[in-house]
Amino acid sequence: MKTIKAFAPATVANVSCGFDVFGFAVEQPGDEVTLTLKKEPGVVVKKIEGDGGRLPLAPEKNTASVAVLAFLEAIDRKDEGVEIYLKKNLPLGSGMGSSAASAAAALVGINHLLGEPLQRKELLPFAMEAERVACGSAHADNVAPSLLGGFVLIRGYDPLDVVGIPTPEDLYCTLVHPHLELKTEDSRQVLRTSIPLKDAITQWGNIAGLVAGLMKPDFGLIGRSLKDVIAEPVRALLIPGFDEIKEKAVETGALGCGISGSGPTIFALSTERELASRTGKVIQQQFQKLKLESEVYVSKINTRGAKVV
Amino acid sequence: MKTIKAFAPATVANVSCGFDVFGFAVEQPGDEVTLTLKKEPGVVVKKIEGDGGRLPLAPEKNTASVAVLAFLEAIDRKDEGVEIYLKKNLPLGSGMGSSAASAAAALVGINHLLGEPLQRKELLPFAMEAERVACGSAHADNVAPSLLGGFVLIRGYDPLDVVGIPTPEDLYCTLVHPHLELKTEDSRQVLRTSIPLKDAITQWGNIAGLVAGLMKPDFGLIGRSLKDVIAEPVRALLIPGFDEIKEKAVETGALGCGISGSGPTIFALSTERELASRTGKVIQQQFQKLKLESEVYVSKINTRGAKVV
Repeated sequence: MKTIKAFAPATVANVSCGFDVFGFAVEQPGDEVTLTLKKEPGVVVKKIEGDGGRLPLAPEKNTASVAVLAFLEAIDRKDEGVEIYLKKNLPLGSGMGSSAASAAAALVGINHLLGEPLQRKELLPFAMEAERVACGSAHADNVAPSLLGGFVLIRGYDPLDVVGIPTPEDLYCTLVHPHLELKTEDSRQVLRTSIPLKDAITQWGNIAGLVAGLMKPDFGLIGRSLKDVIAEPVRALLIPGFDEIKEKAVETGALGCGISGSGPTIFALSTERELASRTGKVIQQQFQKLKLESEVYVSKINTRGAKVV
Repeated sequence: MKTIKAFAPATVANVSCGFDVFGFAVEQPGDEVTLTLKKEPGVVVKKIEGDGGRLPLAPEKNTASVAVLAFLEAIDRKDEGVEIYLKKNLPLGSGMGSSAASAAAALVGINHLLGEPLQRKELLPFAMEAERVACGSAHADNVAPSLLGGFVLIRGYDPLDVVGIPTPEDLYCTLVHPHLELKTEDSRQVLRTSIPLKDAITQWGNIAGLVAGLMKPDFGLIGRSLKDVIAEPVRALLIPGFDEIKEKAVETGALGCGISGSGPTIFALSTERELASRTGKVIQQQFQKLKLESEVYVSKINTRGAKVV
């Protein structure tokens, strides 16, 4: 009986100005998936821990098993028997790429168990399929960084074109997760399907600036580019006290601050771990004023992505 | 009597995916401006050559003099007497940044004549003022590269945030100017003021990809990113045979091909001078089939910008 455990990190999608095309991975938190090869064919989700009983065990609905099923079909090994044990450390509906992390860990695990038939990048379509099942859209801005690590640009979806963007040394991420839950699906629905050309121009200036800032690196430019005129103005309405939180984070010394993925988790980037920690405390205090509990996670940017542990 | 001559290069704005935020300069062609300090106060456009008598001599209407007037006002020397002689080598209404080149050359010239009171980057607002007068919008994606050289990102306009993007070695530009004239103002009017979010996402994936491609450098990525789903589909209708031209340019070996600024000039980028020349011939042949005369310019990317000659 072969068994293996894999870890995949939380991710920040959008990164303010890169809606649907940009994301990065953090060191912690992350999901753990244990996979065991069995004699009996079929993929089974044996147990899920940490989800409060809310995630589906049905293999065609759980993101980890959906990803594994898509992978097995692609490598023509549908008859494999796989038992999945999923340990959720990421809160659901948090905007930290919870569904993506489970799928990424499961894929890295099963690929390893079966002797690495595919390259890391080749696992992406199966993780995207899991995203489609989990939240209705096969976006890659969480699964790509969770699988590959670092900052990842999805240059295009048709065909899929994934570009790793070098991560500057000394870049730290603060994540603050308030005890509110937003479904990605709902959070996408508040967005307009048509936007002013003027706002689009602002946004593509900023995403280009963010990529240039990361690559130079130029932390001032990174900070100036961390602006979102598309999703944030609408989604911020779902997060109590957002504008003040952002202001305080930047006052504390963070380069920038925004909504992680579709929220409600807040992310901030800082050039020192100590600044990132202080920013976390300041944001948490803001939520406390509104009687909202929250967790704070501080970590370096994860440049390796999901891994076998 | 102090006199000086300055040159400023043609520029390609938009560069397919960077509408209003991205541009680059070429070595040739460019405009030449000769400035002479006079005793009598006031800015005078003495003579313009190469415009077929079509550009205004009135100082408040000509881009070179508008830029000089704005500069003199800013440095509090409105009483200077300046005589301007403008030699246009850039065709008007061509999409090669004709108005920008005249303004940039005039500014570099007057700044030099008066002992360099301002840094190169500080000249930008005056050149933008000239653009506003020339075509109704104070866009910086021609004036910034014409002044500064290389690829330039206008990260934002409020406040103005101009970012130089490193230029890879061995990048050549082909410009083919068909004898058609489009006014920037008209060419802007065909654009919609509202665009589908889906298209905006495609565009910001591409501009981020183009910046990453230039900085890595990764010529394949540059080529894949040179796509425009916003302005090109509309503006291409004003350029006969555009789709086939583009196809042929890429077949010939160009990394990508698009409309320079608001057109009708076509630009292509190639990794070898010989490829860039061949691409120029192929595009010219396509225009010939439609009985359209054209000029071809092939040059390296200009990384220094406007200069005193």
